[in-house]
Amino acid sequence: MPDYNEKSLSKHQELKGKISITTKDTLDSRDKLSIYYTPGVGAVSSYLAQHPNELRNFTWTHNLVAVISDGSAVLGLGNIGAEAALPVMEGKAMIFKDFASIDAVPIVLNVHTAEEIISAVKAIAPSFGGINLEDIAAPVCFEVEDALAHILPIPVMHDDQHGTAIVTLAGLINAIKLKHMNIQQCRIVITGAGAAGVAISKLLFKYGARNIVAVDSKGIVSRRRTDLNESKQRLLDYVDKDSDGSLSDAVRGADIFIGVSQPNILSPELVQSMAQDPIIFAMANPVPEIMPDVAFKAGAYIIATGRSDFPNQINNALAFPGIFRGALDFNVRQITDEHKIAAAEAIAALVDNPKPDNIVPTVFDKRLVGAVSSVFKR
Amino acid sequence: MPDYNEKSLSKHQELKGKISITTKDTLDSRDKLSIYYTPGVGAVSSYLAQHPNELRNFTWTHNLVAVISDGSAVLGLGNIGAEAALPVMEGKAMIFKDFASIDAVPIVLNVHTAEEIISAVKAIAPSFGGINLEDIAAPVCFEVEDALAHILPIPVMHDDQHGTAIVTLAGLINAIKLKHMNIQQCRIVITGAGAAGVAISKLLFKYGARNIVAVDSKGIVSRRRTDLNESKQRLLDYVDKDSDGSLSDAVRGADIFIGVSQPNILSPELVQSMAQDPIIFAMANPVPEIMPDVAFKAGAYIIATGRSDFPNQINNALAFPGIFRGALDFNVRQITDEHKIAAAEAIAALVDNPKPDNIVPTVFDKRLVGAVSSVFKR
Repeated sequence: MPDYNEKSLSKHQELKGKISITTKDTLDSRDKLSIYYTPGVGAVSSYLAQHPNELRNFTWTHNLVAVISDGSAVLGLGNIGAEAALPVMEGKAMIFKDFASIDAVPIVLNVHTAEEIISAVKAIAPSFGGINLEDIAAPVCFEVEDALAHILPIPVMHDDQHGTAIVTLAGLINAIKLKHMNIQQCRIVITGAGAAGVAISKLLFKYGARNIVAVDSKGIVSRRRTDLNESKQRLLDYVDKDSDGSLSDAVRGADIFIGVSQPNILSPELVQSMAQDPIIFAMANPVPEIMPDVAFKAGAYIIATGRSDFPNQINNALAFPGIFRGALDFNVRQITDEHKIAAAEAIAALVDNPKPDNIVPTVFDKRLVGAVSSVFKR
Repeated sequence: MPDYNEKSLSKHQELKGKISITTKDTLDSRDKLSIYYTPGVGAVSSYLAQHPNELRNFTWTHNLVAVISDGSAVLGLGNIGAEAALPVMEGKAMIFKDFASIDAVPIVLNVHTAEEIISAVKAIAPSFGGINLEDIAAPVCFEVEDALAHILPIPVMHDDQHGTAIVTLAGLINAIKLKHMNIQQCRIVITGAGAAGVAISKLLFKYGARNIVAVDSKGIVSRRRTDLNESKQRLLDYVDKDSDGSLSDAVRGADIFIGVSQPNILSPELVQSMAQDPIIFAMANPVPEIMPDVAFKAGAYIIATGRSDFPNQINNALAFPGIFRGALDFNVRQITDEHKIAAAEAIAALVDNPKPDNIVPTVFDKRLVGAVSSVFKR
């Protein structure tokens, strides 16, 4: 992978921000000032005071998403705080605009408890048409998303959970098709029991998987563990909660390995202990759980990573632009598991002829946003 | 004044929002994705985690203002709530962009106590380079602005207070020049003891006025009143606190009437009771304290209003774009009374040859933003 660090630093310093505001008309006359601002805008405000549900017909909210982070789990960098997270959120806003024509505003929060984050987002929510939560650490992210999705009248999605889960499922759909298996048969190991791990487990379960083992840094997540936090306990609903043991116990005989955890934890020996021709999604970033060349040498059939310099990139950008495009266009308030599964199927279907090195479309596929957004059509 | 209501409603419905997001480069290659988003952006985030003070050199915050309202005191409409306030804040964002090239994001809050507003704005503040508070009712607006200006490392200004005060002072500077008076001599009556009234009283006092009487709906604001809330008590520092009586007592013999109160409260008889050739700023919107033709007939020398269809429009848009342009460009954290007075003088100085019907420049004066922003240069 080429080193983008210097390039990225200098480009960011040159542009001083990757997005800006533009006006849809120019305020070059008193007449326009009177129409867009006072006194004319008073009529619009009066109307909306009577008809609050028509907000999206008169304001930019119909096409507007807030990309909100508290900077507590940014990329591979961890808890770097609000300010340092902002360039990532600006980048996400860029993707929203260029890929799906969605206006997105980065909002970074310098509060970090679930209660404080919920309060802040609730307070500003009328300003937006949708909320993309981003890079908020587990388990806070679960409570925040659950509460906001329940309270707010606009779609809310924590992308680290569901964007990752949707694209993982999309890739898996094509991978197991290549193996002529169905999801019910597959023995699946998921390493990492944070935001992404929990969401992937849940979505695969909802899709039909019934043999999932989850592993965290202490071993297999089972009902006999006494050290599980609330989000890991929630995992027990989707996984084989009676399994116990270590990573190597979990991996032995598995058909599918899904890593959202730590670099290099999957050794060639562990790959060799899996079922024949295993499917490996090694999505730790930037260094995966096992490097593709090592995995192939150990017998892997399909490898996917989070990286753009290998085939089969499991990239959230395959999902979130279309997800919010659809939710906004079809005025959908809740993004459900059914939407997520349909989105994964739509993404998978864009690969005309799946092959081991081609199980997901590229993020530049022009059909992507339309295919994903249309799953929100009633 | 032509009726803009229908025009404004249909234009807002047609455009569905007056602003949008634009990207400074197009994400049309993997290389650009890697520079602007992952993995490259990680280097920028890592750098900012170490150097948080350099945020403005790498993000859009260096040119970004939040226009924040809780919708509690919108135009002449009062407490209409967050949603209904949004078109006004979008209009303000348009003015920021078209007049001063500032990116502005409208944020409407559905919380209304000082404590809640302060918490919400504090939480989102790292996302922005400046905070323009707007249309927040007194006395909450005072506590909110004071706290945020004190706490936050970025400039905070409640425009209903200080934008109005700055432009009022700008107009007065030219008006009293035409009367060959100085501010110390003038007897000034201010009607309305809300956000604007308090800020105008304070700024005129700081500018040297020593004979100010403030009037609210119950009469002259004096130290003997027992019904004054905290913000009206604060007024006592700037006004003649030993004056008592009614509006007519206050107006008798006054040189200057400044109304930020209610339509039609200044009768021709009251104008006739003022000193000779009085100066009248009747800024209630859309119906002023006295209509200009009525005031002239009663002997007024100079009339200013808030309306664009009469001469001498006291329009906040003369000040706030330049104020924030200057605060952002010169990295000024606190907008002081000295800045405000210098801004008023700069605005006044743009009128080459003041006349009774020409005491302030037009908002389309291309020199305006430069003149105002340069007062922040150290």
